[in-house]
Amino acid sequence: MTTELSPSAKLEEPVLAYHRAGKMEVCATVPLRGAEDLSLAYTPGVARVCSAIAENPELAYEYTWKSSSVAVVTDGTAVLGLGDIGPAASLPVMEGKAILFKQLAGVNAVPIALDCTDPDEIVETVARLAPAFGGINLEDISAPRCFEIERRLQERLDIPVFHDDQHGTAVVTLAALWNAARVTHRELADLRAVVAGAGASGIAVARILLDAGIGDIVVCDSKGIVHEGRDDLNPAKQSLARDSNRAGLTGSIGTAMRGADVFIGLSGSPMAEEAFRGLAADAIVFALSNPDPEILPDAARRYASVVGTGRSDFPNQVNNVLAFPGIFAGALQVRATRITESMKLAAARALADVVAEELTPDRVLPDSFDARVAPAVTRAVADAARRSGVARV
Amino acid sequence: MTTELSPSAKLEEPVLAYHRAGKMEVCATVPLRGAEDLSLAYTPGVARVCSAIAENPELAYEYTWKSSSVAVVTDGTAVLGLGDIGPAASLPVMEGKAILFKQLAGVNAVPIALDCTDPDEIVETVARLAPAFGGINLEDISAPRCFEIERRLQERLDIPVFHDDQHGTAVVTLAALWNAARVTHRELADLRAVVAGAGASGIAVARILLDAGIGDIVVCDSKGIVHEGRDDLNPAKQSLARDSNRAGLTGSIGTAMRGADVFIGLSGSPMAEEAFRGLAADAIVFALSNPDPEILPDAARRYASVVGTGRSDFPNQVNNVLAFPGIFAGALQVRATRITESMKLAAARALADVVAEELTPDRVLPDSFDARVAPAVTRAVADAARRSGVARV
Repeated sequence: MTTELSPSAKLEEPVLAYHRAGKMEVCATVPLRGAEDLSLAYTPGVARVCSAIAENPELAYEYTWKSSSVAVVTDGTAVLGLGDIGPAASLPVMEGKAILFKQLAGVNAVPIALDCTDPDEIVETVARLAPAFGGINLEDISAPRCFEIERRLQERLDIPVFHDDQHGTAVVTLAALWNAARVTHRELADLRAVVAGAGASGIAVARILLDAGIGDIVVCDSKGIVHEGRDDLNPAKQSLARDSNRAGLTGSIGTAMRGADVFIGLSGSPMAEEAFRGLAADAIVFALSNPDPEILPDAARRYASVVGTGRSDFPNQVNNVLAFPGIFAGALQVRATRITESMKLAAARALADVVAEELTPDRVLPDSFDARVAPAVTRAVADAARRSGVARV
Repeated sequence: MTTELSPSAKLEEPVLAYHRAGKMEVCATVPLRGAEDLSLAYTPGVARVCSAIAENPELAYEYTWKSSSVAVVTDGTAVLGLGDIGPAASLPVMEGKAILFKQLAGVNAVPIALDCTDPDEIVETVARLAPAFGGINLEDISAPRCFEIERRLQERLDIPVFHDDQHGTAVVTLAALWNAARVTHRELADLRAVVAGAGASGIAVARILLDAGIGDIVVCDSKGIVHEGRDDLNPAKQSLARDSNRAGLTGSIGTAMRGADVFIGLSGSPMAEEAFRGLAADAIVFALSNPDPEILPDAARRYASVVGTGRSDFPNQVNNVLAFPGIFAGALQVRATRITESMKLAAARALADVVAEELTPDRVLPDSFDARVAPAVTRAVADAARRSGVARV
């Protein structure tokens, strides 16, 4: 790969040209035409606004962009499929996320790429920079550190802290599965699912499916089925072993998939097709690893009635962009103190319902740019926040 | 002061209405019209850009907003004349600064209001969040902590770190003094100046005037003249005592002002008029404390030929907004690693020269919104950075 800069920008690859000088800017939302505006925006007028907030800190939501701002925080340790590429190299992803936040839900997101990887340092740093933001979107932080970092920040801060790689994926996958069950005339409770991959997203997907009432779920990591008899599990997997796999299965993923109704791939790499032969009739396959899914759609259709991937070039793209803009917009709208399980379930339900009247096996999710999505998710999340008692307004 | 929110926003004070929901937003600078743009801005296309930066970190300046972004960092301990009002209450000032950065010089500035005041913690936090930014503007951090924080960050980071309360004020004051000397047919070397106030800005002003070659300077704090015989001086004042006050004056500010050519007030409060009677003929008075200058212009004119304040409602407003946008824009243009003394002197010279052809005693500085200012300062700072050897390009 050549990264040398050509003196002639005309020869630049289109994707590099698209990113040149970055993809975002800061704009004023108030007029700044001369001395009078200056005296309102800055000294001396601004002192009145500062004093009001000093007296009542909640007024920061009224008179600053805290009401609409989110920090997109990464340490660059798990960026896309590229792994630990560091904070500077993660910035194009964070900017991309920021402009999607704005375009889809009006949220003002700022990339914060941290030059540290120790969980204590990340927690301290994010807690210290939190006052200017209405929410924290954690992004591309490697497992298992991401679990601890999110939990500790949630305990410490009074604004939502949301690791999108976990919960965004979980919300969209649940929505897709709800609709896949509908289109095959079943309920979630009828289904037994296998999740391949027990990293951040695999564990979060398993958790939300359990919360949503799935029949049973078996999670597999690189060593096979996650079960209580194993002594090589980290705390997140131990906890999952207790709550999943009701049949007490042991062994390989092939064993888990025999007779399963649902396969969800978050393993990071392609699998042998053989295992898919064991799936039950009318199976649902979401092969979500990117760029190479566990199984390609053409092959998957031989064993499944509904097939989805993480890619935009196949039907049923499971893409976090369907969830995170509306989830944060809804949380910000009510100045939520956190994002609860019921807010995530409400987001998934609203997302699924957008295409309720259009359901086919190749359309269990809306398109990424469907303008109905973010407003529906925003409304559902705001309502659920109020019901959860985490709304300030 | 009442800060209760009226249910009827129509009754809101105009200054509060101006600040409602904040004063800034994030905007995309690239098209995001559908799936194709999404595949460039985000996955899968963005991976190409991330890989390029991972291989050559300098490319962050080419392909992210690092080339134009500045973090405006405060801990809320010295906000305007309000003092230690905390991070949330400081946000309206930081947002005001951010939109001025954009409006005047195209710089994308982000408010970072830190929930910590310990210098070690501030240094660590800013160092960790630096990768996403091309510069750090420290703001409204109380003295003497601000000196240590700035110095340590400058040593640690490879981007400019600039405490505007010190150096912005110093640059604009020097520009004003250069022009005040011109209009009264003198050179800086002919002048003996008194600075009232030995806080962050007073010390920075004294330092830049010494660098620029002022004849002599005497700094006074609340105890009187800063001189080497005093045993109650912090390190910054001790150092200043060695470098200033060549005549070895001791005693009160009245003693210092006797026969002085220049008075610069950065003391925070009005002074008795009596002391001003001692100034030399053709004196220059910059009474910069806000909102109440050391002496009001009408009174000052009885003792001085050139009078300025920090206020917009009198002539010759010494306002940092004349300096910081262009200083950062110039530093960013050449991807400077720091802001050197010569870059500050160049900024002051360029600022002074903008009104060289229009000089009168009531016009020693351009207006805050004079469109000639930021481009002139930007160019001068970029050129000086190249000469200083701190430019990357």
